[in-house]
Amino acid sequence: MQLGLIGLGRMGGNMRDRLRAAGQEVVGYDHHKETTDVASLAELVEKLAAPRVVWTMVPAGQITEKTIDELAELLSEGDIVIDGGNSKFTDDGPRAERLKAKGIHYLDVGVSGGIWGNTNGYALMVGGDAEIVAHCRPIFDALKPAGEFGFAHAGPHGAGHYSKMIHNGIEYGLMHAYAEGYEILKASELVENVPAVIKSWREGSVVKSWLLDLLDRALDEDPELAGLKGYAEDTGEGRWTVDEAVRLAVPANVIAASLFARFASRQEDSPAMKAVAALRNQFGGHAVKR
Amino acid sequence: MQLGLIGLGRMGGNMRDRLRAAGQEVVGYDHHKETTDVASLAELVEKLAAPRVVWTMVPAGQITEKTIDELAELLSEGDIVIDGGNSKFTDDGPRAERLKAKGIHYLDVGVSGGIWGNTNGYALMVGGDAEIVAHCRPIFDALKPAGEFGFAHAGPHGAGHYSKMIHNGIEYGLMHAYAEGYEILKASELVENVPAVIKSWREGSVVKSWLLDLLDRALDEDPELAGLKGYAEDTGEGRWTVDEAVRLAVPANVIAASLFARFASRQEDSPAMKAVAALRNQFGGHAVKR
Amino acid sequence: MQLGLIGLGRMGGNMRDRLRAAGQEVVGYDHHKETTDVASLAELVEKLAAPRVVWTMVPAGQITEKTIDELAELLSEGDIVIDGGNSKFTDDGPRAERLKAKGIHYLDVGVSGGIWGNTNGYALMVGGDAEIVAHCRPIFDALKPAGEFGFAHAGPHGAGHYSKMIHNGIEYGLMHAYAEGYEILKASELVENVPAVIKSWREGSVVKSWLLDLLDRALDEDPELAGLKGYAEDTGEGRWTVDEAVRLAVPANVIAASLFARFASRQEDSPAMKAVAALRNQFGGHAVKR
Amino acid sequence: MQLGLIGLGRMGGNMRDRLRAAGQEVVGYDHHKETTDVASLAELVEKLAAPRVVWTMVPAGQITEKTIDELAELLSEGDIVIDGGNSKFTDDGPRAERLKAKGIHYLDVGVSGGIWGNTNGYALMVGGDAEIVAHCRPIFDALKPAGEFGFAHAGPHGAGHYSKMIHNGIEYGLMHAYAEGYEILKASELVENVPAVIKSWREGSVVKSWLLDLLDRALDEDPELAGLKGYAEDTGEGRWTVDEAVRLAVPANVIAASLFARFASRQEDSPAMKAVAALRNQFGGHAVKR
Repeated sequence: MQLGLIGLGRMGGNMRDRLRAAGQEVVGYDHHKETTDVASLAELVEKLAAPRVVWTMVPAGQITEKTIDELAELLSEGDIVIDGGNSKFTDDGPRAERLKAKGIHYLDVGVSGGIWGNTNGYALMVGGDAEIVAHCRPIFDALKPAGEFGFAHAGPHGAGHYSKMIHNGIEYGLMHAYAEGYEILKASELVENVPAVIKSWREGSVVKSWLLDLLDRALDEDPELAGLKGYAEDTGEGRWTVDEAVRLAVPANVIAASLFARFASRQEDSPAMKAVAALRNQFGGHAVKR
Repeated sequence: MQLGLIGLGRMGGNMRDRLRAAGQEVVGYDHHKETTDVASLAELVEKLAAPRVVWTMVPAGQITEKTIDELAELLSEGDIVIDGGNSKFTDDGPRAERLKAKGIHYLDVGVSGGIWGNTNGYALMVGGDAEIVAHCRPIFDALKPAGEFGFAHAGPHGAGHYSKMIHNGIEYGLMHAYAEGYEILKASELVENVPAVIKSWREGSVVKSWLLDLLDRALDEDPELAGLKGYAEDTGEGRWTVDEAVRLAVPANVIAASLFARFASRQEDSPAMKAVAALRNQFGGHAVKR
Repeated sequence: MQLGLIGLGRMGGNMRDRLRAAGQEVVGYDHHKETTDVASLAELVEKLAAPRVVWTMVPAGQITEKTIDELAELLSEGDIVIDGGNSKFTDDGPRAERLKAKGIHYLDVGVSGGIWGNTNGYALMVGGDAEIVAHCRPIFDALKPAGEFGFAHAGPHGAGHYSKMIHNGIEYGLMHAYAEGYEILKASELVENVPAVIKSWREGSVVKSWLLDLLDRALDEDPELAGLKGYAEDTGEGRWTVDEAVRLAVPANVIAASLFARFASRQEDSPAMKAVAALRNQFGGHAVKR
Repeated sequence: MQLGLIGLGRMGGNMRDRLRAAGQEVVGYDHHKETTDVASLAELVEKLAAPRVVWTMVPAGQITEKTIDELAELLSEGDIVIDGGNSKFTDDGPRAERLKAKGIHYLDVGVSGGIWGNTNGYALMVGGDAEIVAHCRPIFDALKPAGEFGFAHAGPHGAGHYSKMIHNGIEYGLMHAYAEGYEILKASELVENVPAVIKSWREGSVVKSWLLDLLDRALDEDPELAGLKGYAEDTGEGRWTVDEAVRLAVPANVIAASLFARFASRQEDSPAMKAVAALRNQFGGHAVKR
């Protein structure tokens, strides 16, 4: 099957490799000249036979919106646009409507797997019409892992990105659960070999997971994580997950706490804790740090 | 009424002043020569007529235990020991037993009010036998604020310190609620005068409180809290409150979060967030700070 | 000063009383015939001399928007609309723009004080232009408590409702801090008289506040709170506060936990805990409740 | 190698099977006549050649303590006692001392794997002296999974149970992260096939794990989890993990929130939320449920 793939960065570049290795025909476009297959979106569209399938894998937000709007000018009725970036699910419905006005179909796909997807395959959660999903199935089958897992048609437009958002919210919580356990182990006077304990959990234990394998891998490289700062960005989905929990009245203490810990990790000083220090000083005469 | 008062620091010194102003007779002992009324515990005991009432107001923990054990050697059957420090409630039962073996009565008193107690009076929560509480009532009445509030006989030995522990756990939560709201106001682009908004809440609002008055006072002194570091110690009761919540299976997310925020405020870097950063780097190739 | 007041429910009705008691002239409109002073918005506008000041105190959301749009048709250039309801701060900018197109001024006012405001006065946080705020000052002075507190000009359009939103977020946290402490006290074997302990904190303690006074009042009426279900609605501002914390990357564990506890209080059963029960059963053969 | 194994329930019974399948000689004792190999502890000890290795796998707490004290009377100098139950790590040091006084060695082992350990092998975290650990290695090798993972010598007496405690604390957090994500997905209007989405994550995704496999398995059996109540016990380690976080001043919001959610799941009504409802009614006249 032919696929136009826009965005050949850390994710898109690997996906092109995996698709080609599976015998799919990929025409890739990127603004980096070293990696692109074609010089322009127009050339990309030209190289594909109708009905075309074009997959955007560019940073979520304005760039995705702009790229899809440009594409819409170049594509024809019956063509299909797939967005595999981390778009917010609320963008998908309006986007699908805009494309539909030109007779272009749309799918939103949540893609998980990170830099390991090339080797392991990607988990794909898809939103959109069932017949369009079915049409694109060869692409999905080439990207997903071998075996029965790694693909779901989650629901209508937006359901793919929604599922990926929740996936990432869960990911925040999982990472932080391991991180808290790791910190207590490190602080303990009893456990002498923290990396060995974590390694032991990789098989047989209830907490075994791919993230645990990666934590073990990181500790193999740097047993004290001495070379790292305790600092983490967040990339949208974690925030949207908490926003959704709030909107839907779902208690989400764990995911929210994971997100807030990332916020705190980026603060040089905490205004809230300044207020606490000020209060303690006011009522108790407790010493403050100045 | 006569009272022996051991420990004349920030709390005890003020309490002596307030008691004397109310016409009570206080013999104070402190290891600082400038403030003490007597040269030794022995002299303090000597100066009091039996049945004696002696109040310890020294740092909780070993110093309290040691002081009370020394006192027990000097006091006589029928005397009364009152501990007003921030002892852990679990120390009170055994302590009362040890004193009872010598015929000495015991009360545990949670004292709230900080450095303002001299002026405003102290809130007192008392644990022990009703008749001993009644006997000491003139002391309590002199220390408490005028009016109907500020005194409770909470229950048997330990109930006074228990009540104070929970008081402080609540205090952690209250302070942090204000602190989070303050931080959001500061971060907002809309609210131009944060101290004025906080000041406006001091009357008429649902959130009016003495802590809010103190936050306003701190902002009057330093409108940006620029001279403070966002750093706060914790002094036992907050931790014990969370331990009690865990023991009694009470969900205490707010108080626990307030306590954990203090822990975080004292960390130079977060081992947990190092683990999160390591994981993000492992699966996603996300940049890390080194 | 003349004021048109739309909405004479629990809040608006009391405000009319307080304003009149202060010598202000109020023309009130409500769809309940028993309470309204005039038969229609048109009649209300007619009864006021230009430049008119009209205050809306109706349920936030569509009713407020609709009422203000109707008013805008009836008012004249130079008139002033004040919204004192719990509108979302993001509505204020666009609303001010729409009114400005007709030469009508706008202020947003956060009003705190609940059903006690009639007696105690209301805390008012105002957003809008300084000269319009100054013009309406007699109204604000009549509504606010006597004394120096209870009024702030917080900033431009939206700043008043923003401040009220944060006020309510803090309120959620304060209430929950007391509530958790109350629950631990109740669960404890040591504290025999929980209401007495809480009453003792009303003076002299660090946790004294108006909310604490009200908790004491509730316990006076029903010492075990036996007549109440542990169920609480939330009314927008708490959710918006958490949304703002997320948007501004402010760690807000305490306020979020308070909000989530309200969500949980309204669930008959927890889908999340079903998943936890299912997992425990799967890996450990732990018994489940069916 | 010979092993005496005391306690042949869900865990111990499976362990005996796995050990025997690996060619180890196991003498099992249980108070259930159908499963026991011997009639008494004395007979178990008699059947083993010195130096004996005896493993207790009985409910943590008093039963473990009593069993080990009985054993200590029957065993000889140079014998080894291993406790594989979920004992609290603070019990291990004193227990090792008591045994050492009789010349008996002691190891504490955290065992993870649940009812799947028979098939998959158990993850084992061991505390105690290195030479005793080495002596017992054939037992550990038979119990652990094939391959390089599943075993760690964590440190001195207590380190094994400590590691298992943290393992379980992490487990609470992981389970709750999935559970919150699951609840949001269920509440969403967009995602039509929640079980399919969860199944898709089993390969290729960042959140793949054994617990996720089990969640999928549970949803295969009951797609709505309709047959379950959202109710979960906790079994000690989660509480101890939070206690340790508090003792060591480690912020552990995620693990604490997971624990508190279990507490809440077992409450018929929440005293804290009664207090919140009472407060809302007091200040705002908000309706309450009675």
